Parts: sequence; C-alpha cells; structure tokens
Amino acid sequence: MAGEALAAVAAQLEGLEETIIHRIIDRAQFATNPEAYEAGTSGFTGDPPPLESLFHLRLRAQEEMDAAFGRYHVPEERPFHRDLPAARRTVSVPPSDLVISDLETINLTAMIAERWLAWLPRFCPSGSDGQYGSAVEHDVAAIQAIGRRVHFGALHVGERKYQADPERISDLAHLAAAGDREPLLDAITRREVERAIEQRVAQKTEEIQQSYTSGVRRRIDRTAVANLFLTVIIPLTKEGEIRYLIQRAGVVGA
Amino acid sequence: MAGEALAAVAAQLEGLEETIIHRIIDRAQFATNPEAYEAGTSGFTGDPPPLESLFHLRLRAQEEMDAAFGRYHVPEERPFHRDLPAARRTVSVPPSDLVISDLETINLTAMIAERWLAWLPRFCPSGSDGQYGSAVEHDVAAIQAIGRRVHFGALHVGERKYQADPERISDLAHLAAAGDREPLLDAITRREVERAIEQRVAQKTEEIQQSYTSGVRRRIDRTAVANLFLTVIIPLTKEGEIRYLIQRAGVVGA
Repeated sequence: MAGEALAAVAAQLEGLEETIIHRIIDRAQFATNPEAYEAGTSGFTGDPPPLESLFHLRLRAQEEMDAAFGRYHVPEERPFHRDLPAARRTVSVPPSDLVISDLETINLTAMIAERWLAWLPRFCPSGSDGQYGSAVEHDVAAIQAIGRRVHFGALHVGERKYQADPERISDLAHLAAAGDREPLLDAITRREVERAIEQRVAQKTEEIQQSYTSGVRRRIDRTAVANLFLTVIIPLTKEGEIRYLIQRAGVVGA
Repeated sequence: MAGEALAAVAAQLEGLEETIIHRIIDRAQFATNPEAYEAGTSGFTGDPPPLESLFHLRLRAQEEMDAAFGRYHVPEERPFHRDLPAARRTVSVPPSDLVISDLETINLTAMIAERWLAWLPRFCPSGSDGQYGSAVEHDVAAIQAIGRRVHFGALHVGERKYQADPERISDLAHLAAAGDREPLLDAITRREVERAIEQRVAQKTEEIQQSYTSGVRRRIDRTAVANLFLTVIIPLTKEGEIRYLIQRAGVVGA
C-alpha cells in the first residue's frame, strides 16, 4: 500500500521532468546575457529608475500576477517572494494527506534561483545577444518548473516515507532537528532511484532534441541536464523532505 | 541571393515549431475545462466581480506585464489587446529590412485566439479537472508562440517574396486590394513547402513524445498538430503576408 502510493508520487514527479527539460531548451536558445542579472541595467525608466536587475523585475512581476490568480494556494507552488499580494480569486485545492501548517517551511526557492543562475553557462552560449527580455522570461519559466518538482517531491515523497514507518522517521527527524542530519538523509535516499532519474533525464533530453536538425534550434547537453537533476534538483528535494519530516514529527520549534 | 534569404527565414520559422509543439503538449496535460472560458466564472472577487472569463483575465494580465517589459516593440510579437500600457523600459530592436509603418496592419491575434479555442478539444480530454488556472496559463503561452510564428512569417516571408519580384508582386497586391486576392495568394503559396511542414511537424511531435512512457504525461495526436499547422497556422501566415504586401506595394488606403 505504502509502496503503491510512493510509486504514484514518483510517476507524477517523472511527468514533471519533460517540462523542466523543455524550459531549459527554451532558455538555451539565448546567450547567458549577464546584463540581464546586473542591478541598474534593466532598461526600466522611472524617477528614480528601479535598481533591481531585469531578472528580478521579471520574476517579481510574474509572481505578483500569479499570486493574484491564486497560484500559491497550491502546496507545491511556492513563491520566490514572501510579500506578494493576496489572491483575487477563490481557488479550490484538491484534498491531500499532507500534514503541514506552514508551507513556507519547505520553500527552497532562494536556493533554486541561486543554483539556476550559476548553471546557466552550462546550457547557454556565453556572452550577450541583446535578447534580455526573452532570456529572463524563460529563466522564470524554468525556475518555476524546477520549484514545482522540488516542492512536490519534498511534500509528497516526504509524507509517503513518513507513513511507511512513522516511528522510525520521527526518531530520525528528532535527531536531524538536533543537528545530526545524516541518519534521516540516509533513510530517505535511494541511490538506485537517483541513478535511474539521471539516466532517464539524459535519454529524454536526447529524444526531445532528436528532430532539431535545422541548425537553427540550439541543442543542450544531455549530461548537463542529468547533472542538474543529480546535483541540484534531487538534493534540494531531499532538503525539502527533511524540513517536511522535522515539522511532521512534531519537533518543537520546527 | 533572394533564395538564400528566404531559406534563412524558413529556417527561423522551423525553429519556432518545437516551441509551439511543447506548448500544445503542456496545455494537453489538462482537460478542456469549459468553465475557464465562460464569462462570470473566473472565481475572481471584487465589487463588482469582473465579468470576463478566467482565460481573458489571464491573457490581459500577461499582456499588461509583457507590454511593460517592452515585448511589443518586437515586430513579430503582436498583442491580443490594443489598449495596453506603454513599455516601462527601453528596448533595442535589431535592424531589419521590413517596410511597414503600422505593425498592427498584420495583427492576426483575434483569429489566432478564436481558432486555438476551437481546436482545444482535439488536444485535451473533454470535461473539467478543476485546473482552470493551469489551463489558461498554458493557453496564453501557446497562442503567444503561434502568434510569433504567424507574424514572423507574415513579415519576413512577405518581404522576401516582395524583394524577389517587386513589380509582379506590386501588381498582384493592387489586384488583391481591389478584391481579387487569388492571384496574390497563388503567388505566395508553395504547396511542396506546406506539405513538408505538415510532415515535419507530425514527425517532431512523435519524436518529442517518444520518451513519454510513464502513463502520467498525456500524449497528443501528431495528426492534430499537423492539421493545426496546415489549416490554421499556414493560412493565417499567408493572410498576414497578403496584408503586408498590400501595404508594402503602397496601395492607397491600405
């Protein structure tokens, strides 16, 4: 029963992989464009002009719009900003068996944004092509897709692992809260699953790009995508699981 | 020389096909969700609550944001709304050899939106899954991608065909402006190219989805995608070319 439920969650996570790959390919059609990430070079006018980079201004505008439309009522959609306007529409969220009072506990967006920007040179040609607006538009789409995968995994894989053995996980979560995180990290780590994800993502990246023969559409490196999953997306998901499990175990002060 | 330039434009158009296919696949992960397109059911509150459908509210919000960021300074990015706020940043647009004083002449967004909504049942399972916000978010991304391809083709293929034989095209454009459009339509139609696009798009759709084995990610029908190109995207591109050429030929009142 617990195994079946975990398999269902894993299948949903697998379905989010293509979206992430598509978004990386979209972003890779443009150069790294360092100007788009520098303060004071957004091209925005105003009195005074905003100091934020074009990337930050775009992410902020996107999240303000999304907040108004109710995106952040969905547990796995965690925002990169904390001071967003309230939703302007009522949104019904499907029932779940998650036990978490404050979803922000597992919000890893700051790390996702930081790692994404550090990874850009592995996907995009270095330099500037002047397409700053398109670059940051696709950045935002990419980090939203990565965030959805990380937070969905943190919440739902976390809950499945808790339900599989509540007593043992609670004990490990208390240890983790006290500073000894390794035993809990070991308990939630399945190396064979991680290797399967790594291989599958590399293969999907190859297959999705199979028809890109025109020389117009830039291809991305399958190894770079697989490494992004192995060294960024999976570790951040496990960090989210640990945070989920510490609060799930009712550790005081978590 | 003219042939080479036309081939370069065709290659750029080809590079836009994957984006359209990705966006259709993204949208197809959700049901048709008719509620998202009905007036008065957006879930938005307010006094009075807005009458527009969730789709219209989302498209409007997206375009207001995009306008502020300067998207509509790019010739092939034509908005679905005409009363958008001015850009809040300076945008540099690469030089081109287009000759057009009012880009809105070739704006076919109203038809693109109408056809897209009519086509949804061919891609999405019918009924409601409650994911209205995700559905309209992906609608907007899809029609923006289609619009970019239609307007890029209208402008750049139009200009290439004009330059290949300015006198003959001018004569046909004058005929078209007077109501006899068939000769100009014939002159800009290349059936073998259209058939090649139809086949290529079907093949790309198949290849992109090749790795979707999990049963979680919904697949779309390659024939439906090919038909969308053959019966909607290509005809609208040619309609845009005709509009471009009529004004290019300097027809009075065009």
